[in-house]
Order: sequence, then C-alpha cells, then structure tokens
Amino acid sequence: MTLADQPPAAALVFQTLLQHGPLSRAELGRRTGLTPGAVTKAAASLMADAWIAEGGRPSTERTNGRPATLVAVRPERALFAGVKVTGEELIGVLADLTAKPLASHRVALDSRDVGSVVLAVARLVERLRVTADLPGEDALHGIGVTISGDVDSRLGTVQYSPFLDWRRVPLAQLVEEATGTPTVIENDVRALTVAEQWFGAGVGVSIFALVTVGAGIGAGLSIGGRVVSGAHGVAGEIGHLPVSGVERICTCGNTGCVEAVASTHAIAEQARQATGDPKLTMDDAVRLAHAGDPTVRAVFARAGHAVGLALACVANLIGPERIIISGEGVASYDLFADHIRQAFLDHAFGAAVDCDLLVRPLPFEEWARGGAAVAAQRVFAPTK
Amino acid sequence: MTLADQPPAAALVFQTLLQHGPLSRAELGRRTGLTPGAVTKAAASLMADAWIAEGGRPSTERTNGRPATLVAVRPERALFAGVKVTGEELIGVLADLTAKPLASHRVALDSRDVGSVVLAVARLVERLRVTADLPGEDALHGIGVTISGDVDSRLGTVQYSPFLDWRRVPLAQLVEEATGTPTVIENDVRALTVAEQWFGAGVGVSIFALVTVGAGIGAGLSIGGRVVSGAHGVAGEIGHLPVSGVERICTCGNTGCVEAVASTHAIAEQARQATGDPKLTMDDAVRLAHAGDPTVRAVFARAGHAVGLALACVANLIGPERIIISGEGVASYDLFADHIRQAFLDHAFGAAVDCDLLVRPLPFEEWARGGAAVAAQRVFAPTK
Ligand SMILES: [Zn+2]
Ligand SMILES: [Zn+2]
Repeated sequence: MTLADQPPAAALVFQTLLQHGPLSRAELGRRTGLTPGAVTKAAASLMADAWIAEGGRPSTERTNGRPATLVAVRPERALFAGVKVTGEELIGVLADLTAKPLASHRVALDSRDVGSVVLAVARLVERLRVTADLPGEDALHGIGVTISGDVDSRLGTVQYSPFLDWRRVPLAQLVEEATGTPTVIENDVRALTVAEQWFGAGVGVSIFALVTVGAGIGAGLSIGGRVVSGAHGVAGEIGHLPVSGVERICTCGNTGCVEAVASTHAIAEQARQATGDPKLTMDDAVRLAHAGDPTVRAVFARAGHAVGLALACVANLIGPERIIISGEGVASYDLFADHIRQAFLDHAFGAAVDCDLLVRPLPFEEWARGGAAVAAQRVFAPTK
Repeated sequence: MTLADQPPAAALVFQTLLQHGPLSRAELGRRTGLTPGAVTKAAASLMADAWIAEGGRPSTERTNGRPATLVAVRPERALFAGVKVTGEELIGVLADLTAKPLASHRVALDSRDVGSVVLAVARLVERLRVTADLPGEDALHGIGVTISGDVDSRLGTVQYSPFLDWRRVPLAQLVEEATGTPTVIENDVRALTVAEQWFGAGVGVSIFALVTVGAGIGAGLSIGGRVVSGAHGVAGEIGHLPVSGVERICTCGNTGCVEAVASTHAIAEQARQATGDPKLTMDDAVRLAHAGDPTVRAVFARAGHAVGLALACVANLIGPERIIISGEGVASYDLFADHIRQAFLDHAFGAAVDCDLLVRPLPFEEWARGGAAVAAQRVFAPTK
C-alpha cells in the first residue's frame, strides 16, 4: 500500500505536506503549481485513503471571510522500523511516516555471521513492535536496514562491508524472509541524507551535502531532490579524497586520504605517536587537547585541515547551498572547527564559498532514523 | 515555438528520437514506457507540426508481416547559432536541432569591452546566416553564447569572467537586443556537457563527467540527465581541487590547485624553470618532452598526476559511469596519459575504479557547438 496507488498529483501534494506541515489548499496550489481543481481532487483522494486529514492549527489565511481549513499528513498512517547495523551492535527505532521515533532500542551483536545478524535484526524489530504495542502484522509497513560500506539499494545487496567483512550479501531479501515485512537496505550515510532531505536541515535546499565525521568519514550528496548513489554504487566517499599528503596510510591502502589523518582511529594513533604514550585513547587525546597540550592540538588541527579541504572539494565540484557536518566526531568539534572552516574558506572557489556550513550533533540513535526514512520514502515517493 | 506547445508525451518521444535516431513506434513504446496509443498520438502531434517525419532507413522489424515504418527527427526543423567567446576571439557555428554544424566561422576580437563584444557576436551571427543562405528572420530559432567563468544561465548574466575581466554583465539580454533572436548563455564547459549528454559520448549514460584540459581545467557533471550548475553558480571546478601540494600558486591565489601545475600556462612555466630557458613556449616543451628530455618529461608527469588525482575526486564523490577527457591539452595527451591513469587507479575508491576514462580530442570549433546545443535544448526540453 503506497502512494503509487494514488494519482501523480496526490503524491506531489502529500510530499509537500510532509516537508512543510499543515497547509491550506490555496497554499498547496501555490507551492505545487497545481490548479485549485487538481489540489481539491488530490486532497479528496488522499483523505479517502486516510493519508491526510483536515484540522491542524487554525490558519490566519481566510477564504470567503472564514479561516481557511488546513490539511495535514497523518504521520501514524504507516509505521516503519529503521535498523542501523555496526560491527558491534544494532540500533533500532520504530518511527512514523515522518521518521519521528516512537520507540528505540539497541542490542549488542555476539557474531558478525550473516545468519546471526539477520536473526538479531528480526528479533529487534519484533521487540520494537511489542514496545510500541502495535496491534497486528499489518501495522508495520516496512523495514529499512542501513550499514556502512558499499550497499546496492536497488539490488538489495551489501556489496562490501569492511566492518562486518561481508561481500555480496542479499540482506534485503534475508531480512524480508525472516520478518515477513517488506525491507529495503541503504548505505548508512545516504540513508541519513534521505532523512535530512525530507525531514531535516535539507528541506527546501536544492543541493546539499551531509558529512559525517567519526570512525569513518563520509558524505551523502542530495541534488535536486535525489541522493546521488553513483553508477557503480560508490558516491560521497570524501574520506578517501587524496588531499592530506603522503605520510600516512589509510585503511583503504592509499596515502593522502582524509580518513588517514582525520578518522577517530587516525587521530588517536597520531596522538599516541605525538605523546609517545602507546596506551593513549581517543578520550585521552580529547582531554589532553582541551587541557592545551600543543602536540595533541596539532593532531586535531591537521585533521580539521584535511576535513576542510574535503569540504572545499565538495563545494567546488557540486556547489551545494549547505553542508551539514555531523557524526560522532562532532562531539569534539571545537578542537578542529576553526581549522575546518579556515581550510574550507581558503580553498572554496569563487561563489562556492557562500555555501553554508552547519554543524549538527547526531546522537547515535539518530542513525537508525535513516533506515526508517528510506523505508518510508518507498511508500510516499514510490517512483524514486 | 518550442515543444512546450506539445503534449508532455510528445516531448519524451522527441527526445528519445533525438538521442537514438530513427525508431519504429513499437520501439519508441519500449524505450519510453508509453502505451502504443500514447506513442501514436504523440507522433501524430509532432508530425502535424513538422518536428518529425516518417521514413529513414528501412527497418528489419516487421508489423503484420510488413517492415515497420520508422519515424525520425527533422533536424532542419529549427536552426541555432552557437558562439564561444574567449579573451581573443569568437568562434561561431550555425547548427541544426541535433547541434550538427552547417557553417562555422571565427573572428578575432579587437576589444574586450562589453559593447564591442556584443556587436561582434551580432555580426558573426549575421555572417553565419548569410553563409548558410538562411531565407528569413524566422529561420534562426535561438542563439547560445558560451564563455568560461561564472555564468548564471537562469539570470542570463555573466557573473565573472576572468579572461574578459567582466563582472555582472547581462549578456543574454544584450545579445538578444542586438540580434532580435532569443538568446541563452552558459558556462562553456557546462554547454559542452549538454552537447555530449544529448548528442555525444554521454547519450544513455546516467552519470558522467566531461573534463577539459588546456588553458583552464574544468568539468561538467551530468547526473540523471541534468548538468549540475551549483546553488551559487559554481560546479565542476576540478582545476581548483586542492590536491597538488603547496609549492606553486594558482591563478586563483591558492596553493594546491590542479591548475597550478597542469594548465598549459603552468606546464610551460615549470618547463622554463626546469630547463633554465626563459623563452621556452608550450610547443617547445612538448617538443623537448617528445625528444625525451627527462626534466621536461617530469613536468608533464606531475601535471598528469594532479589531473589523475582530480579525476579520482570526481569518481569518489559522484561515482560516474564515464569520464570524458577533452580540451586542447588532449593534443599532447600521450605525454601525461599514463600518469593520469595511474593516479586515478591508485586513488579511485572501491568500485569507483570501474569508471570508464574516455579521451576525446576536441577541435577548437567544437566548443561553439555547446552553445548551439544549449539553445536547442531550450526548444526540445523546455522544462529543464
Ligand atoms: Zn582511503
Ligand atoms: Zn586555483
């Protein structure tokens, strides 16, 4: 049951309401370019199938002297489970049509074996159902599983996941068989980008990038309402742009990669070398830098410089209106913010410098919302 | 008079014929997903307005035992002038709907003053009309002017052209007033990318980049049938990706730019330094390199390495199916081809390495075709 059963104008009306909240029919006409007749017809069709309802906050707008009636999405019309798989654990949310979490849960993985992980995902989804007290089988419309690495969402296959050491795993089908619920999979950063595009800092922004900084460094690129997925499944790999000099070797085997100097692992390792303390952790490095240790501060400065160069590459190539910087690394963002910004300003070309840099902390649970957004997108934007 | 006057299915049918040549109605149905009835109706509408005609090469396909009738675009249905403006000259072509040149001409500019250039463009267009023996005023449907730099095609304004030293020049309007013909303007590399997308090595390719190497180094990015133009007018600036080390200063004032080591000017300058000969030209450098001079060969190697790194950035960020390498620099491509390819292979991440690198010589006149393609696109794809 998706909007594919609705006339095309209905999908447009629904997507506009999803992104902009309750609107009058007149305002819907202005925003979509549809005629009043077409808006009325689309709204009636959506209302008949309970996707939208009249109501919401009173409008200041007036029609024939009376306040205009607003129509709004019924977010509870369809529910979705989003699950993010890491090398160590599963993070799950149950969310509504707008990817708003209604329940969340995380469980440790005791094996990275495909069968065990699929079983753990099915159990987690069942637990989320119970927590949310969902009535029957039908209440869950879809599951979205996200994972770092090379994910072919069209085929439903994890082509390569370095953290899980998986190659060519038909994960969507396996989870669908284990749960009986339609399942989609997506690269974790691209899924978050979908969530931002529809319900976050990307709403109404024609071109934006979502950059995540942490154990890995990646980006999702949204251009004209579509997240770029690459002809061969690779896109947004800003962690492997060759901008950081030849001294350090990246996990991918190359030199010059941003991740080689700016991933959490790379920062901790460089801090150990700088201090000569082989037991130093990332938390120790953050503490020392905050206390003013110049050698450790230099490690963060170098990491920030590399990330800033990568952001300049993104700006010079696709010219985004906004770059959203997020991920676990944002927790210690103050330590490299200035260096990111300076390198970006120095190397953004011409008007590309007008790109807005927005830092947005991302609680780890939020990653799971990306999966819910991707699953919901299959319902409300079925042609994409 | 554009396809905007035709039903939407007609535009789709016409664009499919433009890109794939004569097709039967059945094949059109398969390629567009339209029903037989919709194809017949669209074809009839296009035929009534003389956009397409029956005929073309005989088909091997059979309908009810007889060879299927093919329909084909009438390229002569609308003619366009394309003009490329450089700091020194104008290059003009008169082309048909498929951007095929029917006449071409180039003239030197004796001034970079806006008024003089506009007048020279108008004279060149008039001369192309006369050469092609065009009957009346109506025969020319549109003019496309292309120029290197920051061009806002939506506004019709050249925001900044370093070669002409222009800022905020409403060029589209000025040329339209001087010629009486609808005029569009576009950045020169993006215009070439439009030509490749519809009529060249980009036909049927979902994501591709066109890279030009020469006096400047730039790229056009085509994703899902649209050329990326950037939220602030900047996109595809691969010449200013910070991948080349800090020793040399770029024309943009930064260090690290690809152009700082790989533009024609930068190669000649490095060759002068390497040989100690202050009068050495680019042609001399090419000659010395071909003769085996190791220091000059090293200059080309470094340039190729920087270009290869830039291509890896493009591949890792947007994951193109193909990168087309073109521009004047391709004339001496053998001197850095291996270094471009090696740096690309070393730094393309995962499956991004499957991107096809295609070298395509570009006679200088070809640049003017980009303008004709952009003008034609306004007619056959009016919504874009
Ligand atoms: Zn790497
Ligand atoms: Zn530069």
